[in-house]
Amino acid sequence: MSHFAAVSEPLATLAKQPKSHVRTAVAGVTGYAGAELARLLLHHPRLGDTQPIFLGRMGAEADGTTIYDLHPQIAKNDGKPAPPVVPFSWETLRENGTEILFLALPHEQSREYVPHALAAGLRVIDLSGAWRLHHPANAAVYKLTDSDPALAAAIQAEAVFGSPELHRDEIAGADLVANPGCYSTSIILALAPLVRAGVVDVEHGIICDSKSGVSGAGKAPSAKTHYMYAADNLSAYAVFGHRHTGELLEQLGLTNDQIQFTPHLLPIPRGILSTIYLRLRDGMDAATIEDTLRSFYARSPMVRVHRSGDLPQIQNVVRTSFCDIGFELAPDGKRLVLVSCLDNLLKGASGQAVQNMNVMCGWKESEGLL
Amino acid sequence: MSHFAAVSEPLATLAKQPKSHVRTAVAGVTGYAGAELARLLLHHPRLGDTQPIFLGRMGAEADGTTIYDLHPQIAKNDGKPAPPVVPFSWETLRENGTEILFLALPHEQSREYVPHALAAGLRVIDLSGAWRLHHPANAAVYKLTDSDPALAAAIQAEAVFGSPELHRDEIAGADLVANPGCYSTSIILALAPLVRAGVVDVEHGIICDSKSGVSGAGKAPSAKTHYMYAADNLSAYAVFGHRHTGELLEQLGLTNDQIQFTPHLLPIPRGILSTIYLRLRDGMDAATIEDTLRSFYARSPMVRVHRSGDLPQIQNVVRTSFCDIGFELAPDGKRLVLVSCLDNLLKGASGQAVQNMNVMCGWKESEGLL
Amino acid sequence: MSHFAAVSEPLATLAKQPKSHVRTAVAGVTGYAGAELARLLLHHPRLGDTQPIFLGRMGAEADGTTIYDLHPQIAKNDGKPAPPVVPFSWETLRENGTEILFLALPHEQSREYVPHALAAGLRVIDLSGAWRLHHPANAAVYKLTDSDPALAAAIQAEAVFGSPELHRDEIAGADLVANPGCYSTSIILALAPLVRAGVVDVEHGIICDSKSGVSGAGKAPSAKTHYMYAADNLSAYAVFGHRHTGELLEQLGLTNDQIQFTPHLLPIPRGILSTIYLRLRDGMDAATIEDTLRSFYARSPMVRVHRSGDLPQIQNVVRTSFCDIGFELAPDGKRLVLVSCLDNLLKGASGQAVQNMNVMCGWKESEGLL
Amino acid sequence: MSHFAAVSEPLATLAKQPKSHVRTAVAGVTGYAGAELARLLLHHPRLGDTQPIFLGRMGAEADGTTIYDLHPQIAKNDGKPAPPVVPFSWETLRENGTEILFLALPHEQSREYVPHALAAGLRVIDLSGAWRLHHPANAAVYKLTDSDPALAAAIQAEAVFGSPELHRDEIAGADLVANPGCYSTSIILALAPLVRAGVVDVEHGIICDSKSGVSGAGKAPSAKTHYMYAADNLSAYAVFGHRHTGELLEQLGLTNDQIQFTPHLLPIPRGILSTIYLRLRDGMDAATIEDTLRSFYARSPMVRVHRSGDLPQIQNVVRTSFCDIGFELAPDGKRLVLVSCLDNLLKGASGQAVQNMNVMCGWKESEGLL
Repeated sequence: MSHFAAVSEPLATLAKQPKSHVRTAVAGVTGYAGAELARLLLHHPRLGDTQPIFLGRMGAEADGTTIYDLHPQIAKNDGKPAPPVVPFSWETLRENGTEILFLALPHEQSREYVPHALAAGLRVIDLSGAWRLHHPANAAVYKLTDSDPALAAAIQAEAVFGSPELHRDEIAGADLVANPGCYSTSIILALAPLVRAGVVDVEHGIICDSKSGVSGAGKAPSAKTHYMYAADNLSAYAVFGHRHTGELLEQLGLTNDQIQFTPHLLPIPRGILSTIYLRLRDGMDAATIEDTLRSFYARSPMVRVHRSGDLPQIQNVVRTSFCDIGFELAPDGKRLVLVSCLDNLLKGASGQAVQNMNVMCGWKESEGLL
Repeated sequence: MSHFAAVSEPLATLAKQPKSHVRTAVAGVTGYAGAELARLLLHHPRLGDTQPIFLGRMGAEADGTTIYDLHPQIAKNDGKPAPPVVPFSWETLRENGTEILFLALPHEQSREYVPHALAAGLRVIDLSGAWRLHHPANAAVYKLTDSDPALAAAIQAEAVFGSPELHRDEIAGADLVANPGCYSTSIILALAPLVRAGVVDVEHGIICDSKSGVSGAGKAPSAKTHYMYAADNLSAYAVFGHRHTGELLEQLGLTNDQIQFTPHLLPIPRGILSTIYLRLRDGMDAATIEDTLRSFYARSPMVRVHRSGDLPQIQNVVRTSFCDIGFELAPDGKRLVLVSCLDNLLKGASGQAVQNMNVMCGWKESEGLL
Repeated sequence: MSHFAAVSEPLATLAKQPKSHVRTAVAGVTGYAGAELARLLLHHPRLGDTQPIFLGRMGAEADGTTIYDLHPQIAKNDGKPAPPVVPFSWETLRENGTEILFLALPHEQSREYVPHALAAGLRVIDLSGAWRLHHPANAAVYKLTDSDPALAAAIQAEAVFGSPELHRDEIAGADLVANPGCYSTSIILALAPLVRAGVVDVEHGIICDSKSGVSGAGKAPSAKTHYMYAADNLSAYAVFGHRHTGELLEQLGLTNDQIQFTPHLLPIPRGILSTIYLRLRDGMDAATIEDTLRSFYARSPMVRVHRSGDLPQIQNVVRTSFCDIGFELAPDGKRLVLVSCLDNLLKGASGQAVQNMNVMCGWKESEGLL
Repeated sequence: MSHFAAVSEPLATLAKQPKSHVRTAVAGVTGYAGAELARLLLHHPRLGDTQPIFLGRMGAEADGTTIYDLHPQIAKNDGKPAPPVVPFSWETLRENGTEILFLALPHEQSREYVPHALAAGLRVIDLSGAWRLHHPANAAVYKLTDSDPALAAAIQAEAVFGSPELHRDEIAGADLVANPGCYSTSIILALAPLVRAGVVDVEHGIICDSKSGVSGAGKAPSAKTHYMYAADNLSAYAVFGHRHTGELLEQLGLTNDQIQFTPHLLPIPRGILSTIYLRLRDGMDAATIEDTLRSFYARSPMVRVHRSGDLPQIQNVVRTSFCDIGFELAPDGKRLVLVSCLDNLLKGASGQAVQNMNVMCGWKESEGLL
């Protein structure tokens, strides 16, 4: 099954029904992606009257905590009561008529919750890595254990990789959208137009040198997220072993020998820049490359293609849900450097999740994201 | 003339006419405040169909530059033409039916343009320091020279200090709003409720220790804005001599002996935190202080008052148009520390300018700012 | 007992015996202060042939860890074996003939170890807060519990506050030197010359607004040391309640009403800047103030006094063991702003500890520190 | 002429004469490299009594400026007069008996001064790019114009590329040492051992993705060194066109097709990390690669080779004169990632210059650098 192949096919399915509004809930609201998701949903023009439900730990006591207590920066000060964070329960979701459930939870928990959610008729947008990978060899990196493996496999087979630029039509009708990884999004969006066009010498090997801000490492305090470790520093990690690699292979249709990805920890709060090195099969000119990128993204409002030689940089995408893509071609017309940038918490997580919701509801794809 | 005294008076004037929309223009779009102003106006819900005019240098050639060329981070990628930056001319403003003109220009230029603008029937929101000070002794710091001093003095007398929390009613009817300084906003908003309530021992002296991010120093490259100077550093400057001092004196009704203000350059892009030390005339308890602050700002959506002991911090106001205010009271009930935070480019500049526009147009004060 | 009063008295004691070299050991080598101490000692010109002993946890297994494994940045690559970290034991210290023991441990542990160390004839330089405070009311903040309270009290009575600029002669002969806190050092050194000279209106109250880099919060990962919390942020904390306050009171001979200290967490790795506000009893001129500072520090190589109006800044002291002090006087000749800067890990911890060792051994005070 | 080939040859020349001390001068002391050079020389154990001469602009008036005025962070506060900065003149150098002249000047000025200096019998260590490149095609990037091209060409032919790890013996006897570029040093030192060993598949192409702190861009304020541009950002630049490329080609004996270098601007003050991607001709194991690196640098104190999988990071080299080199080998034994780190102002500039001085004087190579 190739999700990638679906991109240019005619619309097979549509948003189940274009909606004027939708009832949403978010499970996992304490982390950075949760904060951004809460902020985006609380300001989304189509959700005005149907406030999202924010869900805490299952089995926790309701203790009056509000989403503004957790994330004071998003407090609206509009005189209305602060949205509460309520303990997770399927009952609460049913009572509220929730239609779309966002999961910003560890992948083990997602693997446990998703079967229940789908059985309850919810559509799910999952921000973890739990459902992104279709080939067991790739998914093995997550060491998943399912109580009902056959059911999990069936769900997995129907899960759609949540890259609207590649799988718009499938997302529109999907019940389970596996929101992509942040690194993967930056690399896949830069490479897909050229790889699909067949102009890349994939046998030569593609090098992806990626750099991410510290929020990508999550909110749990650790030696590596300590200010003293991250600040004024740069370090490479997980060389030849980062778990986003499987997404690159599956979405780009490449083998492990054909693409190599090295992440680095940047001393900035948020933002990813990927510098991607490849060789073209045949000499090309810059105009043709730019055209290939532009036409691929002609209908994609959340990708901004740059002119040849005008390389994107992190500061222009931070706090936006855009992915910016640019390139520089060597005088030989064969060696190409692609640079792609995004905010790992937005286009790399919560912004893309909202973009997926927009597609699933038949709304304008950029709704609430500009 | 005490603008300060106007705060609690009955509504003397109203927005000249509540408007469904308004035609705006911005002169001075290359700097950081200009970028934020452009972003806010381009997303303002009441300006949807009446795109603001962005004005470059008077006498410049139209060269096709757009606001997105200057500030790629705000490019909407919505398929519509990028808003052009056109040379400044009064003709352009008239042809476009401009009603409100934002000036984000050096104070000398503001001093030159404002008389023309008012004569042309425009309402002006000026972000420079040119028109903020009413007492010549205070204004002297700007070394202003006017071609028609009498006219300038008359205009100055009518100018309203653009702090909606203090001068809401006057702003509603004003033709010239002098948008406050960034440091001044953080200090005035923290002190005004208590100083006005007469509970501060002003003779003892108030100490304002303020810290600002580098964007406050402007976009022109200089030794002090060099990354190598600002990063991993902290420095005090302009001790006993910062030009925002006059705003504190006039707005709080204090003398030079009664308040002391020391700015520091923080190694962050944006944000101001002011730590303010004062003595109360008589012992108070924390609840009373909190009440005083809360009731003063009961109708002010852009000020968030914190509970006693819950001090605001910069990261919760950056990229918002809020001013957050908190405090800690000594066990003696007399020594009080106020902490106030804002984003110097938003509540300290462009966010407050848009707030003023909202007030001038009779719109919800927080429109386009949440 | 006033340690402060001892400053200008004739030399009562001397370094017990001027030494050509000394055998040292460091307990507590995993933290930031430990790393700096190890670096300084490994490069100290008087310790060339007598390598310090680095001590890990008591009762730990020797596992071959070296000081370079813990702190790769100080690895000399000189072909010699890396200095091992050995488990703490009194036996090891005796066998190695250790004369001076540095303790960079939590204060509880220091309180436990110091009686043993002194009984074993060691001289101790303690970097914790355990022995700095002489008045029980001040020391209460550390909640100390001693197995032999009478012995602890006797030791405390003999402990010398390790500020060489104030207590040089006592340190020379001391068996237990309580190395000062980082904030306290920056404030005490700025204020001592003027407070001692009796020119400060202490009844008016002194305000100390201090800002420290993140290393001051220690190496243990926590919510507040997370990069995402500290970066691009500024926050005040422990207003009216920081435990360094007692050092200010005792060393400056002030009461709680007379001095007020507010620390802030700066988004930089290291460095403290204190902005100190006070009133002079009588009008003074800048030259007299500068003279007072300069003559107080005439024999103190690790304090650099700045000219009037030339304020110190953090970047000039980071990675040095200097405290830089400057000031600005109001035109009224009465309101004074002092600014003092140091590196919290050096002059605020390990550099000052080595300075104390130099004094204790009768060496040049700046030996190994320039 | 292959400087590279000289590495393992028997000692052809020696330091002209092992010296107990040497008289030095530095021209170009205002920039970051100048500051570090001044600091290193003022603390160098072999220069104790022969203070370096610091030279300002030729033809300037002597105005009493000292090196401590320019760089307060290096002021020793040792009671001795601050070293003056005197106008550049050949007379001054002769009168002081200068033997080694450091030039930290723009390359045009170096090209003008060096012929005079050599004619005056001085030995020169030049930190600019003026004399690094031997092939005119590579040197063309500097657009050099010489008043006496034949003389310049003759000097160029004798200039030694100042990488002690590669050219130790030639440097020992050299009159003109061209101190390498910062990026080049990080890349050349990582690659030289393997490229020389002939194990790299150079036809496949080597990718060097380098990231540098802002000090690499120099002290002149500019749009790109503005804090607001550099902070919280990352940008690639000079793709396919950085002028350090020529050094890579000449020192590694590669062609333009065989190596590709992309620099990035990191939001940190100092430090370079290069991530280098290559393929080995034949499968190798990690132990062999580590051995190759270690034996190549067995006599090189300023290179620290890491164990396989233990990748270096910037924070461990900043403020040191080391280059740290590590690697990770793919399971296929053919794809290799090298990571190398250094401080661009030290091993990438002034530290390496002092290392060259040590070699030229027959001193221990790490003298004054640990």
